[in-house]
Amino acid sequence: MASVRIREAEEGDCGHILRLIRELAEYEKLSDQVKISEEALRADGFGENPSYRCLVAEVLPAPGEFKGISSKIIQKVAQVALDQGCSQFRLAVLDWNHRAVALYKALGAQDLTETEGWHAFRFEGEAMRKLAGK
Amino acid sequence: MASVRIREAEEGDCGHILRLIRELAEYEKLSDQVKISEEALRADGFGENPSYRCLVAEVLPAPGEFKGISSKIIQKVAQVALDQGCSQFRLAVLDWNHRAVALYKALGAQDLTETEGWHAFRFEGEAMRKLAGK
Repeated sequence: MASVRIREAEEGDCGHILRLIRELAEYEKLSDQVKISEEALRADGFGENPSYRCLVAEVLPAPGEFKGISSKIIQKVAQVALDQGCSQFRLAVLDWNHRAVALYKALGAQDLTETEGWHAFRFEGEAMRKLAGK
Repeated sequence: MASVRIREAEEGDCGHILRLIRELAEYEKLSDQVKISEEALRADGFGENPSYRCLVAEVLPAPGEFKGISSKIIQKVAQVALDQGCSQFRLAVLDWNHRAVALYKALGAQDLTETEGWHAFRFEGEAMRKLAGK
């Protein structure tokens, strides 16, 4: 059985976090969208008024034993959210990522895009600068 | 022509903000999901490490002249986002809200649910407490 310890990220984790962001984006076929640097991750998460919080799972897997880590991280997110007084939390998932979709549904999540019709719209780059008049 | 002034919200605006949240939820047929109180809006937005920021549009409309306010607010959001060093910002829209969809597209936004397949998943209530073991 894998041994998993989940803890708050520290500034020194930012290099590893960026590597994991890049690996996820590669899996999602969205590598071109990773524009953040390690320096920006440090500044955004560990300065005053941090703009994100991050959990890190330290895993000592027995051979072939990675199962259950995703569930453990989501459980921890639920605990942090309740402790912070949140009434809900959300995840964004690609519709072809069937393993993630199945896991989130099995853990009790509702697909809001399916049930209520929510779509995510993004403003970026030229469109964003034009809007801002810059 | 309507006269519009857009400014950062102040704590004293929270009563009006909650009223507008309720009116929007009613339009979205999601009134049952508004669980926040004016006290929570004050605490979350105007304490230490605020968890949201809010812009308020003060409007002195000439009769029949409400057009263009949505665009002005989105322009302001783009300015704030660029000033904060953001590379993008996102909006969540209901697929049957054709006016909003048309406006965001006209302003240069991309529908990520359509183009990349992003779905929003929500954990809440019993499912969230069960996950957290509470």
